[in-house]
Amino acid sequence: MKWAEHAEKPCTIAKTLGVIGESWTLLILRNSFLGSRRFEEFQQQLGMTRHVLTDRLKHLVEHDILKKVPYGESARRFEYRLTVRGKALYPVIMSLADWGNEWLVEEGEEPILHVHQRCGQRTRPVMHCSACGEALNPKEVTALPGKPLQVLGESLKDEALTAEIGYRAPAP
Amino acid sequence: MKWAEHAEKPCTIAKTLGVIGESWTLLILRNSFLGSRRFEEFQQQLGMTRHVLTDRLKHLVEHDILKKVPYGESARRFEYRLTVRGKALYPVIMSLADWGNEWLVEEGEEPILHVHQRCGQRTRPVMHCSACGEALNPKEVTALPGKPLQVLGESLKDEALTAEIGYRAPAP
Repeated sequence: MKWAEHAEKPCTIAKTLGVIGESWTLLILRNSFLGSRRFEEFQQQLGMTRHVLTDRLKHLVEHDILKKVPYGESARRFEYRLTVRGKALYPVIMSLADWGNEWLVEEGEEPILHVHQRCGQRTRPVMHCSACGEALNPKEVTALPGKPLQVLGESLKDEALTAEIGYRAPAP
Repeated sequence: MKWAEHAEKPCTIAKTLGVIGESWTLLILRNSFLGSRRFEEFQQQLGMTRHVLTDRLKHLVEHDILKKVPYGESARRFEYRLTVRGKALYPVIMSLADWGNEWLVEEGEEPILHVHQRCGQRTRPVMHCSACGEALNPKEVTALPGKPLQVLGESLKDEALTAEIGYRAPAP
């Protein structure tokens, strides 16, 4: 199966990767969250060619992740700002940064620290359950194709259903 | 600047993407979290060629994200299991899945639902601050090169420092 065909499959991770999985695209988003808005800023910070940067920005605008907003006196100059859909990617970018800080910083190197301005302390992202508020542990989360909520309890035991999409429920 | 050179820069997001940013690699990790362990399982589920799958598994083992564990009676058969370092990627995979579920599911399609077995309810991951427990908002988080914690308050106002790595602190 080709990569492009994956975007057609009913797996939202594969679809998400189809939209933002390209490395330069993720680095543009990282810089957007850090405040970058203009073509020249992205180009200078990331050292990309104009051609590649133009292509990736166009891709992000087409997928409604960045929006072009005119600035200055000329109607021909644009800034690239995160849309609501783009801002919702913050957990993706933040969790990538946090993992790298924890596992890829070598002896003598400085990690990127994150400071939470609201509490004034160094912060690391911790993923909690939206329903009960407890920290999420992969062994305690089951992935299933969407079904009405009232049948989910049964779906958890439905091996045919989970086999259908190649998923296996973790052991209880 | 070439992509490979980014892995050398002191930005942990760029470094993380250098290790796991490739699309097939992320899909292998997704399936690992869903319980897949054997070469044939990955190949069947993802529809990859043996060559590409072999290459990506080797890459993940070299970076201590998956480990090869013998199984069965033959010492020549291996399973691929997540290491501690690999398990720490769960927030990356889960946040990718959640964004796709929220923003990429089209009319008539079923999203992948996540059920938190601990509380029995449908769950979405929510990112909280490890220090104060509040939900993290990108406007309230500043990224800085690692410095002793006692000078962070000053570093937040140090434009030369943030300009040095191309970062701009969000407006308060």
